[in-house]
Amino acid sequence: MNIFKKHIMHVGEMASGAKLTVPVYSYKPKNNTAPNVYIQANMHGAEVQGNAVIFQLLELLKNCDIQSNITLVPYANPVACNHKNGEYTLGRFDPITGVNWNRMYHFDEAVITSFAQQNIDACEEEVSANFQQLLLDQIEQKLDHNIWGITTGQRIAYQLQRMAHKADLVLDLHTGPISSKHLYCPEYAKASANFFDIPHTIFIPNDFDGAMDESTFCPWWSLQQAYKNLNRNFVMGEGAFAKESFTVELGSQEQIDLDVAHQDALGILSYLQYKGVIDSQKKDYQPQKMTRYGCYLKDYKALYSPMGGMVDYLAEFGKPLPAGEPLARILRMDNYCGNESGDGNPLHNICLDRQVIPILHFASASVNQGTELYKVFSDYFEL
Amino acid sequence: MNIFKKHIMHVGEMASGAKLTVPVYSYKPKNNTAPNVYIQANMHGAEVQGNAVIFQLLELLKNCDIQSNITLVPYANPVACNHKNGEYTLGRFDPITGVNWNRMYHFDEAVITSFAQQNIDACEEEVSANFQQLLLDQIEQKLDHNIWGITTGQRIAYQLQRMAHKADLVLDLHTGPISSKHLYCPEYAKASANFFDIPHTIFIPNDFDGAMDESTFCPWWSLQQAYKNLNRNFVMGEGAFAKESFTVELGSQEQIDLDVAHQDALGILSYLQYKGVIDSQKKDYQPQKMTRYGCYLKDYKALYSPMGGMVDYLAEFGKPLPAGEPLARILRMDNYCGNESGDGNPLHNICLDRQVIPILHFASASVNQGTELYKVFSDYFEL
Amino acid sequence: MNIFKKHIMHVGEMASGAKLTVPVYSYKPKNNTAPNVYIQANMHGAEVQGNAVIFQLLELLKNCDIQSNITLVPYANPVACNHKNGEYTLGRFDPITGVNWNRMYHFDEAVITSFAQQNIDACEEEVSANFQQLLLDQIEQKLDHNIWGITTGQRIAYQLQRMAHKADLVLDLHTGPISSKHLYCPEYAKASANFFDIPHTIFIPNDFDGAMDESTFCPWWSLQQAYKNLNRNFVMGEGAFAKESFTVELGSQEQIDLDVAHQDALGILSYLQYKGVIDSQKKDYQPQKMTRYGCYLKDYKALYSPMGGMVDYLAEFGKPLPAGEPLARILRMDNYCGNESGDGNPLHNICLDRQVIPILHFASASVNQGTELYKVFSDYFEL
Amino acid sequence: MNIFKKHIMHVGEMASGAKLTVPVYSYKPKNNTAPNVYIQANMHGAEVQGNAVIFQLLELLKNCDIQSNITLVPYANPVACNHKNGEYTLGRFDPITGVNWNRMYHFDEAVITSFAQQNIDACEEEVSANFQQLLLDQIEQKLDHNIWGITTGQRIAYQLQRMAHKADLVLDLHTGPISSKHLYCPEYAKASANFFDIPHTIFIPNDFDGAMDESTFCPWWSLQQAYKNLNRNFVMGEGAFAKESFTVELGSQEQIDLDVAHQDALGILSYLQYKGVIDSQKKDYQPQKMTRYGCYLKDYKALYSPMGGMVDYLAEFGKPLPAGEPLARILRMDNYCGNESGDGNPLHNICLDRQVIPILHFASASVNQGTELYKVFSDYFEL
Repeated sequence: MNIFKKHIMHVGEMASGAKLTVPVYSYKPKNNTAPNVYIQANMHGAEVQGNAVIFQLLELLKNCDIQSNITLVPYANPVACNHKNGEYTLGRFDPITGVNWNRMYHFDEAVITSFAQQNIDACEEEVSANFQQLLLDQIEQKLDHNIWGITTGQRIAYQLQRMAHKADLVLDLHTGPISSKHLYCPEYAKASANFFDIPHTIFIPNDFDGAMDESTFCPWWSLQQAYKNLNRNFVMGEGAFAKESFTVELGSQEQIDLDVAHQDALGILSYLQYKGVIDSQKKDYQPQKMTRYGCYLKDYKALYSPMGGMVDYLAEFGKPLPAGEPLARILRMDNYCGNESGDGNPLHNICLDRQVIPILHFASASVNQGTELYKVFSDYFEL
Repeated sequence: MNIFKKHIMHVGEMASGAKLTVPVYSYKPKNNTAPNVYIQANMHGAEVQGNAVIFQLLELLKNCDIQSNITLVPYANPVACNHKNGEYTLGRFDPITGVNWNRMYHFDEAVITSFAQQNIDACEEEVSANFQQLLLDQIEQKLDHNIWGITTGQRIAYQLQRMAHKADLVLDLHTGPISSKHLYCPEYAKASANFFDIPHTIFIPNDFDGAMDESTFCPWWSLQQAYKNLNRNFVMGEGAFAKESFTVELGSQEQIDLDVAHQDALGILSYLQYKGVIDSQKKDYQPQKMTRYGCYLKDYKALYSPMGGMVDYLAEFGKPLPAGEPLARILRMDNYCGNESGDGNPLHNICLDRQVIPILHFASASVNQGTELYKVFSDYFEL
Repeated sequence: MNIFKKHIMHVGEMASGAKLTVPVYSYKPKNNTAPNVYIQANMHGAEVQGNAVIFQLLELLKNCDIQSNITLVPYANPVACNHKNGEYTLGRFDPITGVNWNRMYHFDEAVITSFAQQNIDACEEEVSANFQQLLLDQIEQKLDHNIWGITTGQRIAYQLQRMAHKADLVLDLHTGPISSKHLYCPEYAKASANFFDIPHTIFIPNDFDGAMDESTFCPWWSLQQAYKNLNRNFVMGEGAFAKESFTVELGSQEQIDLDVAHQDALGILSYLQYKGVIDSQKKDYQPQKMTRYGCYLKDYKALYSPMGGMVDYLAEFGKPLPAGEPLARILRMDNYCGNESGDGNPLHNICLDRQVIPILHFASASVNQGTELYKVFSDYFEL
Repeated sequence: MNIFKKHIMHVGEMASGAKLTVPVYSYKPKNNTAPNVYIQANMHGAEVQGNAVIFQLLELLKNCDIQSNITLVPYANPVACNHKNGEYTLGRFDPITGVNWNRMYHFDEAVITSFAQQNIDACEEEVSANFQQLLLDQIEQKLDHNIWGITTGQRIAYQLQRMAHKADLVLDLHTGPISSKHLYCPEYAKASANFFDIPHTIFIPNDFDGAMDESTFCPWWSLQQAYKNLNRNFVMGEGAFAKESFTVELGSQEQIDLDVAHQDALGILSYLQYKGVIDSQKKDYQPQKMTRYGCYLKDYKALYSPMGGMVDYLAEFGKPLPAGEPLARILRMDNYCGNESGDGNPLHNICLDRQVIPILHFASASVNQGTELYKVFSDYFEL
């Protein structure tokens, strides 16, 4: 039985001096013959189901034939995880600054070209090792504070990223607000999307916007492009560049379901087996058969509420909704018997002029004009 | 077709000078031959389903034979209704002071005895009219400000209460966090509980703790007691004292479901028909057949979490749960492989040593040690 | 030099499993010849200056001749202390429930009479020891959880109260929002108010409303009354009943000033020397000469804003303000050139019809109609 | 006497259907001979002093000889202005999404080059008129909703920007947290900085990051650059390009002081007189004599706290602080008698290795590791 080692990482201090800590579970096999793996959960405070998935992964991995280093980090953000306002967890951003916790990772495009020039003749192993070291050195330098310091969220994010940079495959476990399961996948890693038990995949371009997944694959993508400009060609996703990062959206926030977490863990093991992380001779973990839909990020659309009101969400997730069919009905009692201030219509259907697949909706029935109501695949294809 | 009249009530001002308003729908029949009715919804910000129920009541009442005055007030608390923190509505208390919005109504026990003494020989109609006027005068005096003023929440509550005091039957529509339907009913009004389509009723004593329901029936109960002490006996719930108030808990907060609201409205009409508010010759609105459980308030118990953690809520609402069966499992990843700081047990079952009926649970999967986890009937009986 | 011993008290757990801890500093002299002392700070999250006062007390006490046990507890409430919403600390209430953190202490009036009856002939030392033990046993029983558990705030409060019950003199260090220094003092302990360097004292009756100061002196007061009913007379504040508790309001919240804290600490040492806690032969710590005003709690009035708006606070703290002089001006730009929706008057003076002493005002310039604007002594006297 | 016209602008709807409104004050002289002016305040909820400045401007402008259109908008953001969490106003970001309210304005770089090409031979007046129309059309198109809608904050921001685009001089009135007065000024408008009564100016480059000031001058700067690339040269700040935008930081948030607002208004009139907006023959409004310091944005540095703790802010604003002198002392009681978990040092001085001018500091004494403690001019020069 495989024993995962646990250690406690310090990631910050609160006003009282209380230490912010994160538990880290890790396993190193005697012979490392496969890509290393990093999986974290709960960077956003309310998105807790990933912790249960890591629990189930730890249970399942006890009896797997593990071929490479695996690092698992639940409760990745202790500030967010413990921050309540009313009954709910204030999930997505630093309550002091408003900055999204998943937009604070580091990538400095400026170092790429000179690295490629300096390592133009390095062998593939050297390219891989040297570039990984460069990424780690950059994080180290940020953390090992310049005189101006870094933000609370950067201190947490950089310490997580330091672990992720040592891995080849990175999974960042999130959830939507009220949501179906979906996956963010780099366009070049399309083949892998079929190995998760997740029916909807959003393919993202190679641009860095501060998220964990981008912060770990974008540097390698940029490096590959820089080499290409210098007429040396590597294939992204292979060899030294066999790096893949995913944001896995497990469903709805503010929920723990250990049985569903077991299913989610099986889907992740299916991907890890496909990558050779667990011995693929046994073929234990196969992806489920399902219709998988893909969508490019540019076609993954947010619909903002055209009015304030009380929303009865109608559309079923994951199923194509014909043009003109209502996504939701909005109740506006102030319009009832609207002889003076209203338009006389207390119920409004929210429809679109094209067929879409609804993926998630807002967490509350009360919305302002301009609240993000739904996110949908506005153009999509089968995988 | 009955036409409800709408007017806009001003209940306060925000810092920008913006007026806080509440829509009021009212109907007065030519001949008033039955108890008057007051129904409000959404005093707590996140508890929105009552608005949809009022919408469905308005639709259904169009075609009823109405025998008395009916006043319907959705969006009763515009501060709470529009107050978001993160994606959720901060529901239960004034965000500045922390005071529960439903603990700000008025009742001054001190006036009861002297009223009874002064009206010891009044006929029943005079007792009823004079005492109602006293209650209204007291509210008026509070609102018509003394030099020290009143709080934001009192200004809202008193204006609502002023309307409720003019009615005989008062329904305050709320919801639980994640919850089954249940009803708060004064002990003396037990017979009425069978006319709602709600399977669980909590019988409350005649003590005033600041809530709308208490603020409207407790004065009458106290008056009846004062008369009894003066050897004049009235029957609570009959004649001049035919006053009933209920807090109707419609299910879970942060949700609008117009179809369920239609069902909820039918249940309320069943009660109103029983009371003669809508013509009972037709027998249109009959209560559903169901097993109804009752519980005294002292036996309606909150269970506070014995530890911090991530909760997988297991118990089904409304169904007796045998002693020793888990209400919930709490995940504590920091205890996993707890060689240093944990107890080695990452999963804890939360059980009780007696059979209970779970009624509602906390809205979030993340709880601190001491968060209210469940509310249950710890001792109960069939109605 | 006196060395205070430090230990870390566990007071709860957050959702991540993070332990909530409070540092406790204590000193026990070889011979205990004076009343024991308990001082805590920062029960409300934003009221931080007491921590600095405890720091300065620790520094000064190093070189005092200490005659009794002293326990000092900064950062008494780690949940509140670390809870930010925007840039400010959400101070006064549990963010989940809205309950004021300083209304969660314990006192069960029901045990008093039977204790007096059972200890009617006990000598004074026995009365003191037995009753203290009863209070501690009650706390222990609450903490040593009944099956239903206790709230997050009760768990913190009870553990603090357990330490306070072992002391005779209790100081709970708070601050107002934007505030002058003032003191809450039991009416029977009036003489002590002159030994603090605080110009304004509010004398409180012997009623329990959940606060730390009340929870430690009210039980003794009630016991003395119970004995009086049994015709045994003790003097409150003397002998076995030499118990005094104060809430010390150190000025404004959200501020640390170490120099002012040094002055505050000197004032506290003046009181402690008066009580014999530090050797009074030396007469090191004398109260400052100042005009001290007193006010009964019933005359300590909150003024709620008669309108929403932007407030220019004008009145000086601590100085009698003549009737008719403005406390504040409220700006209402929506009334400027009020041809349509306003009254044409953009500036409103807020005045009272009597002379008052302003003590504190609201922390923000933006107020709703009904926000607590000022607290004032409406009737007062020189001490 | 000049009469400003007031109208009420609708900028959105809340969940209850409540309309979000903003008052707009405007004046149009018979002959418009000078640059048009747009001034707004309170885009961030807690930054209220600008409302008082607009009040004083309205009072002073009554008696000025006004040469061009002036539009004044207090309470620009009704959502933020009315959003309390605890006693304070949650100021800087949308409480649902965390997005800074002053990062939601619009600028589409993509249209610049083609406009310049199509208007390469237009006369200066045509360039000015056509480009202003293009900017207005773009806003109109965004507001006149595409099927996906826009966010709550964009709807507010775009409606404000639409008014600002019609002006030549734009002032956005803000405040810091606890702050000295300072000014954000485009580098090309350096000469104007001397006409405000503000001692510290930050010169910002011509990059768009979503703020009001940038959204109004960056398009014109970009257009001037585009023309330069086409070999047609305009001078930024003159003729058709006489556009200037400033963010005016009036001091600390959560404060209204009408007397200081009068001074602030005089400083703004000094600038407006310099620009000919009010008749400069009279020379009524002259800038105060003071030492004015400038700093480039890249040298305006945030210092993040190296530890959690309680901060005694020491450094005086606006005065050069020598290298090594403490900006602040941080109290860490958990380190007191740090025999076990602390470093034994309860007080830490926060110093820098270079001379700086402190401009503002954090609003609360409680900081986490990584909270923005101070903002300082790290390199500066006299204007």
